[in-house]
Amino acid sequence: MASERITPRTLKGFRDYLPEAMIPRERLIESAKAVYRSFGFRPIDTPAMEYTEVLLGKGGGETDKQLYRFEDKGGRDVGLRFDLTVPLSRIVAQHAGQLERPYKRYHPGPVWRGENTQRGRYREFVQCDFDTIGTESVLADTETVLVIHELFRKLGFERFSIHLNHRKLLAGALESIGLSEHAADVLRALDKRAKIGDEAVAKEMAETAGATDAQSRAILELVSVQGSNDEVLAAARERVADSERGREGAELLAQVLSGMRAAGVAEECVVLDLSIARGLDYYTGTVFETVLDDLPGIGSVCSGGRYDDLASTYTKLRLPGVGASLGVDRLLAAMEELELLEARPSPADLFLPLFDAQRSADYLALATRLRRAGISVELYPDAKKLGAQLKHADRCGHRLALVVGESEWAAGTGQLKDLVAGTSEEVTLDGLEATLHARLSS
Amino acid sequence: MASERITPRTLKGFRDYLPEAMIPRERLIESAKAVYRSFGFRPIDTPAMEYTEVLLGKGGGETDKQLYRFEDKGGRDVGLRFDLTVPLSRIVAQHAGQLERPYKRYHPGPVWRGENTQRGRYREFVQCDFDTIGTESVLADTETVLVIHELFRKLGFERFSIHLNHRKLLAGALESIGLSEHAADVLRALDKRAKIGDEAVAKEMAETAGATDAQSRAILELVSVQGSNDEVLAAARERVADSERGREGAELLAQVLSGMRAAGVAEECVVLDLSIARGLDYYTGTVFETVLDDLPGIGSVCSGGRYDDLASTYTKLRLPGVGASLGVDRLLAAMEELELLEARPSPADLFLPLFDAQRSADYLALATRLRRAGISVELYPDAKKLGAQLKHADRCGHRLALVVGESEWAAGTGQLKDLVAGTSEEVTLDGLEATLHARLSS
Repeated sequence: MASERITPRTLKGFRDYLPEAMIPRERLIESAKAVYRSFGFRPIDTPAMEYTEVLLGKGGGETDKQLYRFEDKGGRDVGLRFDLTVPLSRIVAQHAGQLERPYKRYHPGPVWRGENTQRGRYREFVQCDFDTIGTESVLADTETVLVIHELFRKLGFERFSIHLNHRKLLAGALESIGLSEHAADVLRALDKRAKIGDEAVAKEMAETAGATDAQSRAILELVSVQGSNDEVLAAARERVADSERGREGAELLAQVLSGMRAAGVAEECVVLDLSIARGLDYYTGTVFETVLDDLPGIGSVCSGGRYDDLASTYTKLRLPGVGASLGVDRLLAAMEELELLEARPSPADLFLPLFDAQRSADYLALATRLRRAGISVELYPDAKKLGAQLKHADRCGHRLALVVGESEWAAGTGQLKDLVAGTSEEVTLDGLEATLHARLSS
Repeated sequence: MASERITPRTLKGFRDYLPEAMIPRERLIESAKAVYRSFGFRPIDTPAMEYTEVLLGKGGGETDKQLYRFEDKGGRDVGLRFDLTVPLSRIVAQHAGQLERPYKRYHPGPVWRGENTQRGRYREFVQCDFDTIGTESVLADTETVLVIHELFRKLGFERFSIHLNHRKLLAGALESIGLSEHAADVLRALDKRAKIGDEAVAKEMAETAGATDAQSRAILELVSVQGSNDEVLAAARERVADSERGREGAELLAQVLSGMRAAGVAEECVVLDLSIARGLDYYTGTVFETVLDDLPGIGSVCSGGRYDDLASTYTKLRLPGVGASLGVDRLLAAMEELELLEARPSPADLFLPLFDAQRSADYLALATRLRRAGISVELYPDAKKLGAQLKHADRCGHRLALVVGESEWAAGTGQLKDLVAGTSEEVTLDGLEATLHARLSS
């Protein structure tokens, strides 16, 4: 028999989430959804599996290599989604007639990439995107940034900043410098600046975009401008004064900034940062990244921007929009490091040991009463020794236990034990709901 | 360009969930999770993809044919999970050292089966299981049934019944009748009773289990016993009086019933039903199905039972437990038919039209204030004509809109429009939170 057993194991690059890991994930995603909903975003879901042709579009990129792709039993060439943007593009094209625009949707869900796992990356991970599609209004950009701000505030981050830039501002600057023909190459090089430094960026720009020394210097100078947001904006305006696009980009950024102020966002939470480019070709307007000031090294935990044309792969309908993607795994790692996660998430508000199986009915009645009052209760199912039951409760992360033995049932009382502090107090079962509510909210 | 476009489409057997479909799904799953948590269950998640060997175990069943199976880029034979029980078995075997038992987990997640789609079945669907593993206590069975009861109550079902039986009672009865050698065949035939009728069941039992006419009659008589739970129990006890297993099954059922009473569950919500067998070989104790009294035809919407040994495929550790699986799609279809779903789920509590883009800052400030007070607000991003904005709000399912134009800003007022009733009233912006809270809770 033993020899027939199969070794229980997960695939390389995949992992299980046991409760200790899953509880904070679930809470994070719930928090994100609640914030999205508070701005009127609505949920969607799409299949894990799609036609490869639909997933890859014109293809040719890194995604082709990472795609989990196979032939299904009907001979179809299919793959697993590798992001939530492609399904969004497909869905808005496919259901265009049914979708009211602006269309505000959020979409939490797993995606799969057969990536190299050496850098601590997983092949299955959760994204949590939100987008507003079908409007060119800068107010939608502002609200997108507000969503991010509100979410990070709700999650308990005290020091974070959303770095903002505008692709038209960058494009205008490249026009002024005479590099607009090679904008894509320049922006691709600029995106690596934090990693490889100015010199290597200049070298790459010379190679891929044919940038002269003077051009490189001008662009690197622009993206290095520091100061208050007003100062950075003034410096940027000066440099793009002769480009209509550039002036437009600066004006739109100014509007986002003033919107953030109107919503009461502290100045230091939003940073004009002319070095942000978000290499992805499809961004055309506002672009942003979110940096945790106490952990700058982990990079952006929430990024996105505005695009002109989301779904041109599938439809002639022009669909501009703006959105962002939350890096759930990176964010959880950061929250753990910053001790923003509850150290011992409790399985329930109260642990109720079972003293005597003959009394099951009383325990069930009590547990039901408390649950109806909004207090979650884990009732232990076996009448083991109290010590063993409390040890189990402690190991599972419970904080409060209510011990009701034979004499307590008779007296209508219980011993309320604080498993963390190691203290105990007598409580009456009558009115227990109020006692527990007070205790749990303190 | 147009000729290069890719037709946006989903695979056969797969579907998109647009907000109208996704909002009730999300709410249902949230409700289930909240009820599970109130009993101390904790969430887990496992990878969508596993080694085929792990998924199929000894294999040989229907699942082999339905499995989405392929070779990954590392040459591994992999597949997509087809239920949440196999990953649960694998996880408890693999992480046995880390898991405190009893181990109470819930797991909402998609599963994939390459099923025949003709019967309206989908190839991707969501399950929402919960299990208690590592205890033989009947109290765990009782709490499992209580979870189901509480969930259906919370979802708004008024007429539903949980049908209970015990495999040991059935086994005892088969012993008495002299059919225990062929228990599996008999139970398989019995499970089809509702579909094919007594005569066909008797015929199948004769063919597969060699049952005589008298034996068939005896077993069919047993499973047809009707009456109050006490009457059914008494009748069952009588018939299994000479079987120890049978007596044990009856006693355990009696305990579940008395536990349900102790928890205040109405008698008519729990039905002893000796015809329930749950064909799956691994059930060994209490088995149950949940029937919607107003829609009996759709079958069980939540089923499960007790098993002796969950993970013998992967470990020599004996892991008894009890659990259930919620049929999310079937339940949603039922809720729609019974009009238990909100007809027009609103994207937010309030729709705020934008009268004048120059006033964006004021609208943003107002929206922020309301959101901070727990009122969700969708701010329209474009200063289109009011009629167009309100039409959009109506189409999206909004119920309330607050119109604040230039004169209203000056006066500190707004027009609160009920888009369903078609009424309007003047409100002051000062103290608007309280006005809206009162309106929303009415």
